[in-house]
Order: sequence, then C-alpha cells, then structure tokens
Amino acid sequence: MAIQKPSIPKGTRDFSPVEVDRRQYLIETIKQQFRLFGFSPIETPSFENLSTLTGKYGEEGDRLIFKILNSGDYLAKVDADLLEQKNSQKVISQISEKALRYDLTVPFARYVVQHQNDITFPFKRYQIQPVWRADRPQKGRFREFYQCDADVVGSDSLWQEVDFVCLYDAVFNQLGLAVEIHINNRKILSGLAEVANISDQLIDFTVALDKLDKIGEEAVKEEMRNKGIAEEAIEKLSPLFGMSGNFRSQLDQLSGILQTSSIGLKGIEELEFVFEQVEKLGLQKSELVLNLTLARGLDYYTGAIFEVKSVAGEFKSSIGGGGRYDDLTGIFGLKNISGVGISFGLDRIYLVMEEQNLFPSIAQNNVKVLFVNFGDAEAPTVSQLVRDLRRCGVNSELYPEAAKMKKQMQYADKKAVEFVVMVGEEELKNKKATIKNMKSGQQNEVSFQDLISFFS
Amino acid sequence: MAIQKPSIPKGTRDFSPVEVDRRQYLIETIKQQFRLFGFSPIETPSFENLSTLTGKYGEEGDRLIFKILNSGDYLAKVDADLLEQKNSQKVISQISEKALRYDLTVPFARYVVQHQNDITFPFKRYQIQPVWRADRPQKGRFREFYQCDADVVGSDSLWQEVDFVCLYDAVFNQLGLAVEIHINNRKILSGLAEVANISDQLIDFTVALDKLDKIGEEAVKEEMRNKGIAEEAIEKLSPLFGMSGNFRSQLDQLSGILQTSSIGLKGIEELEFVFEQVEKLGLQKSELVLNLTLARGLDYYTGAIFEVKSVAGEFKSSIGGGGRYDDLTGIFGLKNISGVGISFGLDRIYLVMEEQNLFPSIAQNNVKVLFVNFGDAEAPTVSQLVRDLRRCGVNSELYPEAAKMKKQMQYADKKAVEFVVMVGEEELKNKKATIKNMKSGQQNEVSFQDLISFFS
Repeated sequence: MAIQKPSIPKGTRDFSPVEVDRRQYLIETIKQQFRLFGFSPIETPSFENLSTLTGKYGEEGDRLIFKILNSGDYLAKVDADLLEQKNSQKVISQISEKALRYDLTVPFARYVVQHQNDITFPFKRYQIQPVWRADRPQKGRFREFYQCDADVVGSDSLWQEVDFVCLYDAVFNQLGLAVEIHINNRKILSGLAEVANISDQLIDFTVALDKLDKIGEEAVKEEMRNKGIAEEAIEKLSPLFGMSGNFRSQLDQLSGILQTSSIGLKGIEELEFVFEQVEKLGLQKSELVLNLTLARGLDYYTGAIFEVKSVAGEFKSSIGGGGRYDDLTGIFGLKNISGVGISFGLDRIYLVMEEQNLFPSIAQNNVKVLFVNFGDAEAPTVSQLVRDLRRCGVNSELYPEAAKMKKQMQYADKKAVEFVVMVGEEELKNKKATIKNMKSGQQNEVSFQDLISFFS
Repeated sequence: MAIQKPSIPKGTRDFSPVEVDRRQYLIETIKQQFRLFGFSPIETPSFENLSTLTGKYGEEGDRLIFKILNSGDYLAKVDADLLEQKNSQKVISQISEKALRYDLTVPFARYVVQHQNDITFPFKRYQIQPVWRADRPQKGRFREFYQCDADVVGSDSLWQEVDFVCLYDAVFNQLGLAVEIHINNRKILSGLAEVANISDQLIDFTVALDKLDKIGEEAVKEEMRNKGIAEEAIEKLSPLFGMSGNFRSQLDQLSGILQTSSIGLKGIEELEFVFEQVEKLGLQKSELVLNLTLARGLDYYTGAIFEVKSVAGEFKSSIGGGGRYDDLTGIFGLKNISGVGISFGLDRIYLVMEEQNLFPSIAQNNVKVLFVNFGDAEAPTVSQLVRDLRRCGVNSELYPEAAKMKKQMQYADKKAVEFVVMVGEEELKNKKATIKNMKSGQQNEVSFQDLISFFS
C-alpha cells in the first residue's frame, strides 16, 4: 500500500493530552454545577434519522447538516432520471436516511416525546456531547464542537429563568471568568413591533436592531427604512436608542414606550421578576445586563433570551446562550410543554480561558513518579513498588527499558514528572530508594516501606 | 408541518439519567486506572478522511465504515457513466471524502505520525471515544459504541505486557468483576505452523484452532483437513489438543513441540517472562490464562495477544482485548515503531455488570434536597437557602411552582430525593425548616443557619 501523508478533515481537531485535560476541566466544572442545580444527564445517538433533523434549522441549517451515506448498494433504488440530471438536492433523501446531530435541542425534544411515559415532569436534563455542522471554519467555529446544554421542560415558572442566571454565574465563578449575562425577552420585542404597528415586520426589525452595537443608531434606522419599515414606526421606536441607566431605570423607560401593548408589559413584568430575584440572591462573577437588541434565533424563543459574553479579552463572541421556548416538542406530537434552557459553548470558553490565562495547571493528572529502569535485576522489585503506589492512588510508572540514564531523565523532563526514583544495585540491597524532586532538584533517601507515605 | 412519530436509527441508543450515570461510573473507573498507570489522554475527530480509514480493516471492514456525504452539489463532478450504471461502489469516493471513525487504533496511528515531533516516546496514550460500524445489530453489538483504549508506542519492552495485565486486573478489581485474562502469542502460532510445515496456511490453521472450545478436537481436525492441511501436519500438531495443567506446565509441553522453531521458542520465552512477573506482582480479581487458540485479528498482532472474559454470568463474549503490533504506523510513513495496547468494551462490560448486579447505587448524583414551593411569599427566602446549599456542594432545588403538596411529594419520590424541606409561613417566621428524611420518614426541625451543617 502506498504511504499516506496523514491529515484530518478541515474544521476538525486532534486534542493533545494537555488540551484534553483542559477540556475535561471545563466539562467537569460545568457538569458539577449542573448536578448541584438538580439536572440529570441524558445522551442521544450521534446520528438521528435524517427526517428528525430536516426542517428544524431553516433552509441554511438543512444544508449544513452532515448526511450519512446509506450502506450497501445505495444507488440501486435511486430514481434514474434524478441521477441523470445530477439533482444533488433531490437524491439526498434517496441515498441518505441518517444524519449527524446538528445541535442538542432537537434530539432532546425528540427524546422527551419518545420517552414521555418514563419521564417525571418538570424534567431537568443536561447533555454534554459533540455536534457537527458543515459550516465554513473560522476562529472559534469548528465543524465538530461540543455543546453543554441544560434545559427544563414542563414548567413555566420564572424561577427557572432565575435559576439559569445563577447557574451561569456559578459556572463562570468556578472558572474564574468574569462575564456579562445579557437578557432580553421576546415579548418585549413583540410589544415594540406592536406599538410601532410593524408586527408583520418583526424579523426585519429585530435583525436591524441587533446591529446597534456594531453600526450605530443612524445605520440601524437606515437599514429599517431599506427594509420598508415606515418612518412613523421608526420615529415611535426612537426612545429605544436613547435608553440608558441601570436595569430598573431602563425597564421604567420601556414601560413608557410599551404602555399600550399588553404583551410588551408582560415582557417587562417577567424581566422585572428575574432581575429582582437575581438581585436578592446576588451574583458572584457575573453581571446581569438588559440588552434590548438581543434576539438570537427569534422564531424559536417565546420569553426570556440569554447570551453570555466575556468582559475581558479580545474574543468577544458569545460563549453561551439560551432562552424560553413554548412549543419545542410540538413537532413530535407533544403539545403545550414549555421549556427553557441554556447552553455553554465549550470551545469558545476554552479560547477565552486560554487568552486570559485562566486554566489552572492540571499537574495532578500527569505521571507523578517515574522509576528509573536499571535492568532485569532491579525491575521486578521496582515493579512491586510501582504496584503499591498505584494501589494507593499515586500515578507512577517504571521506565520500560534499561536505557541510558540521560534518556530516561529526558523522558521524565518532557513528561513533567514530579519525582524520579532510583533503585539501583546498592539501593536494592539496602531496601532504600533515592528520590529526586524534579522541581527543587533535592534528593532524599527513603526506605521502601516509607515510600507510600512519602508520596501520598 | 406534519407531526412525526419520533424514533432513532437501529443499532443506536438513547441513554437515560441512570444509564448515563452508570456509563460514567465505568468510564471514570477506567480513566482513573489509565492515569495511575501513566497514560495520558488524546482525542481525535469523529470523522477522518475516508482515505485514512479505507483499506485498514479488510474488505468487510471497508463496507462497515459509515461514509459522510459531501456537502453542496455533491453530484456535479461525478462520472456520468458510473451514475448511469448505478455503480454504488465506485461512486463512493466521488461523493464522500469523510467517514466516521471505525475504531480508535487507526486514528491513533495517524495521530502519532502526524504529531511525531511533539510526542515523547515511549508514548503512552489513552482514548475513550465512540466508534461507529454499520454492523447488523445484536445483543451487545451496536452501531455506535464506546471504545476505551490504552496503548504504548515506541517501546518493545515486555514490561508493557506485564503492565497491561496488571491494568486489566486493577480496573476489573475496582469494578468488582471477576475475569479471566486470556493470553497467547502470535510467535507461538507462527512456530506451530513452522514445525508442521504449514507456514503458508497460518490463517486457515488458526481460524480452525480458534473453534476448539466450541466444536471440539475432531471437528477442528476435520476443518483443517478440509482446508487442505496435510494429515502429517495435523498429526504433528496433535499434542496441542491434549495439553493440560497450569500455565507453566503447558509452556513446558509447548517447548517440546516447538523445539525446532526459533520463533516459536521466542514466543514461549516472552510468555514465560510475562507470566513470571505477573505471578510475582500478584493479581487481585483476575486470572491469567494461557489460551493457545486465541488469535483475534491475527494479521495485526505480532507478539502478545490478549482477551478478557467474565467468569460468571450468561454473557460470555469478550469484554476486552488487545496485543502487540510491530508496524502500526508504517502505513502512514513512520517505520519501526512497536506498539502494544488493550481495549475495554464499555457496552459489553455494562451488560455484564448489570447481569451480575454489580453497579453501586449512584445516589450522590441525584438531587439530594428538594425544597417545597409554598408560593411567592416564601420562595425568595427559600431560594437563598438553596443557593447556600449549592455553594457548599449539596445538590438541591426549589420545586418551580406552588403546586399541590401531593404533586410536589410525588416529584420528590420519583426523583429519589433524599430529603424534602418545607419552609411555609410558620417556618419562615421562626427561621426554621422542617426536614423530612424520605427513606426513614423521620422529620426534623432545623434552623436556617444550621441547614448547611445538617446536609454536609
């Protein structure tokens, strides 16, 4: 066979031991808080039936789903005309019936409906698994990446929203990462569109509004005009651009604008509740920020909308988000189940943590003790010492060959081993080991029987 | 949109909270021992370039690899003639350039070659990730399943084999599962073929021998005859069938048969070393068993061959295996790197553990404390109590709605909560909580300030 130069598909990554350790640290931290907040884990298959995923993420989303080719003679039953026309689009469903998970939300909805008789509602689940998207790769955007989601379905209590703000705070506090938790409410956006009489242009309105930070007030208004939003409506919405002050004062100003919209006022009431309760509970490492331009996947959310951003560093993309959705499971036949959930963007949190140098040194996972291999006379005894240390929870190993001392010490250096233990002819006779602390350079003599207590 | 009845692809599974907890328990146990034995984790992408995987698993393997359909107008450049002929086989490489990982070994080999300049050899890595095969599903065989692999590359020391036997023992001891670790050596099988003068029929010989347990001596000999192995050769190999006794006595008998084969004697010497050192170190929950019929993927292994089986229970399939391979990375351009490794079959270990009722009750992951929701008067204060418990590491939650007491208690029951805490009007006034132990039924009154110490 010809020799192949090894590579991996674009948008995917290999993770080295250090990277896996750091990712595990993030996952374990998030998982621990999910547990503390009462969420239970589920897992779903990496691939779903294509029909489960199709049509759930919009046209663009459908294109970005990775489809799996059917096994066997997959072309046998394909419509010959479609093949002749090379109609890629229409042939898909004839040669592929499975596709890789695109997010964790649709599989979760499918899970809830499929297992509804085994589930106690409200059902609080977390799920930490990779998802795949045929997106164009760029910084912080990969074709395979992890999502860490927590959702509650079957409760419309606003205490869930309060809990999720606290959960974000708890995780980022644990990670030492200062963040802003942006919050908005779909009902306020609907209310604004209502009072401006542009309810049928809600999407155009929010898409333009979403750009306020980047392009400024005038350009946003210009975009609204270009989308055919009436001057009168823009005039009516103008106070929105001049709003300032803290959460409460902004909500007061909003009340003025929204006084004729019952849905808008409901949105304010909901935000007020969340804000007040969060204020009473207190946040540790986060700030709750009212962000009226926040829309995310608007069609999807029906109440609160969340987005999390790091306050320091260059990387300003969202590192988490979520919100309330009132009919997630409807498409699979289970109506009137309200849900709310949040997601942590593991790969982006990783970038932010790295940029701000926030990862702890995770030395405890390394080999702590390396025993030098002096040869077959000593190795059997040394193996017993290694065995005993391992049984007491000390990561340790015997260098596999009686190689030159220099080579063995280089290995210890590169693996960042804490202690090198030497048991040569002399030590074997005296039942003592020479221990070198690789950081301080200090050497100790320790009897075999005291080795365990020395290292534990 | 029409309502879809939810289902998942055959051979795949959803995992409920209890199942995820149990799988995590297995993974954590294995991971902990991998660490203790000095292995570092890596992860590779779920899909590789199709060319990386093709040709590595034999013809049957190639068929069982899940291919991913190219994105976009994937048919545009396909050879029109091949489409017209519906030549599924030849069209594959034109419409698919990526495929799901089939095992962890080939991606590991690819990783080692690709990152050889960043790696310190001997490189001890572990990897715990799912793999996918388009196999026909049956008990213990799924289309998506986890492999947990540990390998060392860059050392041909037999201490590695000794270490792997001890690693198997350490993991299964931790799990409380009694196992037999079967061991053989490819060099012995080669030596037997050599002395019987059937080196060119090695595969036929081992495939037949492999069935000894199931079909017995006579049927094995019959199969050998059918494959064209000469009567003289079968005669020469006959002592093999009558071998008995312990490890050492079997090796002695083997020495007699193999005395004219240097490769065969080398195999005996290797097995002897492993057996002796393991005997000195002692195993806790396993027995090392010489199994001369063990061949596994013979073409692949060049020295030791391992397989692990549970000694009790109905499910007798292999729950782990591995061996030494001398040229794994050669295909990717890195020659003369010897490797040896073992794998744990997570899904099968799960089945065996379940069958023998060996899973510990993993209650610590559940919600420990549920606070009853009496309404908006009490909830804000109760939320603060929940917050404090969580910050002290106690899994707890407030029931989200002021639902009827019966409903809240049912929820606590179904979630197997340990304690239910009631803070109603009276308790709020006295700053005391009523705590019900759900197992014993006992009730306590505890002041707010003593709650944390009560639960921790």
